[in-house]
Amino acid sequence: MRDVAIIGIGHTKFGKADKNQLELFGDAAAEAMEDANVDRKEIEALYMGSVLPMFEEGQGMPQVYATSELGLGHIPSTRFEGACASATVAIRDAYMWVASGQFDIVLAGGTERATIMGTPFATRTFAMGGLAATEGPAGLTFPGVFAMAAVLYSRFYEIPLEKLREKMAYVSIKNHKHGALNPLAQWYKKYGDLTVEKVLNSPKIADPLTLLDCCPFSDGAAALVICAADVARKYTDEPVYILGTGQGTGGALARLEDFTKPPSRVYSARMAFKQAGLSPKDIDILELHDCFTSAELIALEAMGFFEWGEAADATVDGQTDLGGKIPTNMSGGLIGKGHPIGATGASQVYMVIQQMRGAAPKGNQVDPVPEIGMTDTLGGDFGTLCHIILGRTRR
Amino acid sequence: MRDVAIIGIGHTKFGKADKNQLELFGDAAAEAMEDANVDRKEIEALYMGSVLPMFEEGQGMPQVYATSELGLGHIPSTRFEGACASATVAIRDAYMWVASGQFDIVLAGGTERATIMGTPFATRTFAMGGLAATEGPAGLTFPGVFAMAAVLYSRFYEIPLEKLREKMAYVSIKNHKHGALNPLAQWYKKYGDLTVEKVLNSPKIADPLTLLDCCPFSDGAAALVICAADVARKYTDEPVYILGTGQGTGGALARLEDFTKPPSRVYSARMAFKQAGLSPKDIDILELHDCFTSAELIALEAMGFFEWGEAADATVDGQTDLGGKIPTNMSGGLIGKGHPIGATGASQVYMVIQQMRGAAPKGNQVDPVPEIGMTDTLGGDFGTLCHIILGRTRR
Repeated sequence: MRDVAIIGIGHTKFGKADKNQLELFGDAAAEAMEDANVDRKEIEALYMGSVLPMFEEGQGMPQVYATSELGLGHIPSTRFEGACASATVAIRDAYMWVASGQFDIVLAGGTERATIMGTPFATRTFAMGGLAATEGPAGLTFPGVFAMAAVLYSRFYEIPLEKLREKMAYVSIKNHKHGALNPLAQWYKKYGDLTVEKVLNSPKIADPLTLLDCCPFSDGAAALVICAADVARKYTDEPVYILGTGQGTGGALARLEDFTKPPSRVYSARMAFKQAGLSPKDIDILELHDCFTSAELIALEAMGFFEWGEAADATVDGQTDLGGKIPTNMSGGLIGKGHPIGATGASQVYMVIQQMRGAAPKGNQVDPVPEIGMTDTLGGDFGTLCHIILGRTRR
Repeated sequence: MRDVAIIGIGHTKFGKADKNQLELFGDAAAEAMEDANVDRKEIEALYMGSVLPMFEEGQGMPQVYATSELGLGHIPSTRFEGACASATVAIRDAYMWVASGQFDIVLAGGTERATIMGTPFATRTFAMGGLAATEGPAGLTFPGVFAMAAVLYSRFYEIPLEKLREKMAYVSIKNHKHGALNPLAQWYKKYGDLTVEKVLNSPKIADPLTLLDCCPFSDGAAALVICAADVARKYTDEPVYILGTGQGTGGALARLEDFTKPPSRVYSARMAFKQAGLSPKDIDILELHDCFTSAELIALEAMGFFEWGEAADATVDGQTDLGGKIPTNMSGGLIGKGHPIGATGASQVYMVIQQMRGAAPKGNQVDPVPEIGMTDTLGGDFGTLCHIILGRTRR
């Protein structure tokens, strides 16, 4: 297998869009192709994430119409369904088609228009990422899953729940603060000055989670131009290389001994670190799947950035903010930037690359400019986990 | 890239199932692993097609629960959404992950449980494979698309529509005849003795198509064990090699000058032939996407087996039956065997390999045993086309 680079990135404003998901993806893809100095005739395949396009717009194959409307001809276009990790699965697959030598330049990304469904219906359709046979009939939705995770975390580590809620609030404060500085974020210029009290006193969603512990429903798209490393510098002076990828599969939540330590995430992260020949201490910038504040703590630990049970205090200590051990979700993350589910994995890669170009919004940029970054994306209740490790320097 | 083989195949009975789609897939996958003499611990990834699991069972990630219920651990599992071509897209992708050297042995296939939706709702959800913005609001469903195709075919080649209906009936007679001999087929032991009159006089679905011009709604699953060619003979004496694959993308039907000559299919078939270094005359057995009788004619021509406008007469002449130029859908095809959409592409590969092992049901086996076979799978109204070319001999 040969080395692979990302040479172009595109990203719409996240939030409530007045465009359909094909138009959103078209905007992101056009921006990525322009950023890469690539002509559309050079694109050899499209890999796309989109989770609920049938429910949102009655559209089963957005990848087909994205391809034709972008004028890409009859090139293969493939849609991946890995719930909220769909775009990362698409990027990982695009990576393999280029690494194998089959294609030199491809487009990958994702799109979603979740706000059109409204919160009650969106909550139910999202929940189909869990196990239909038992979790659906039990009424389990994702706020419930991550509320349970917080309760389990509290019990296992003997942190009183009220105390844990305060610690989790620091995740919300941090991610909202950085989202408020990110012009592409859904909560740009909003919630930049949260306090523990404000988070604790916002409306209760699923005990112990409040509204400000949760990411919003969002519309948006993000796209990447992925290219053989050998030709990357023909197009850009700032290629970013894919050093490793991982993917892992979970199962019924009820069969997990302790879902604050999801084995699918441990498996996937290890695969990515192994391929890259790196470990958590090598990562300078991290975008992870903070669908809820409790989710960020679990992710940090399962990926190996902190010992089990230590991520909450580390967050309070600022170790996941600028200047800390591992700056995490400096884009705002899902909580501050928004979570158009089919696009999220591509958005995370966009934000890491923006950091690695030294082009992050003022107040969000890691200093010095990160050499190595990582993304973590979660689909369902630990059903699909996917990781990508990126580097400014070729292996 | 290295050579890739298929070493195990599994297939449930198609029809109306009393199992859910995870159980169906489990049955097919277990059979494929047993056929391959592969232990489940050797499987390194799962690639699955399933089109409407959210509508059928409220299940968004069947690939996850298939993996865990089969005891495959936390290996990557990926679901592909290419409408009725989903399983073939999955197989093509699985092929690439093995060809690249990343994995040695993987599982690929598909599952669907369409009958649970009932015909009216299934017809509407299937139609979401078309363009939502214009084709949906116009009320276009797939029987309508292939009825229009028949009318266009009649006009372009100046075959009076009543005459064309008679010729198309021969597709129905042939495919039902072979389906009636195939124990895995939905119409096993049924419709084995159709006549032109019976086809013409069955209930009208979308003028000029009658019920017997159409494939049924179906439940079922099929699975394949895909393996690096270098180790294939460690597991089986009968490996079948993947010689070429193709994939092509269409677009809005209204933008096609003539959708009896779908360019996405021409593009995909050429890609597969080019990779295999073969042409239509080299193919001994063909399974193609006969969702409707008119669809079989269009496919035969777009793939290059007959000149434009000649497939109808060739079918009447028996050139697509046993002993003819290109035995087509000797399994019964979608019309006679059934069409559980997410499984169909894997079923086609199963049936071609069964032929290449000389193990087809009595009355369906091509003689001599085919050396080279091909599958053609269509998703949507020419949105996603996918082809696979298989050979008993390694390149």
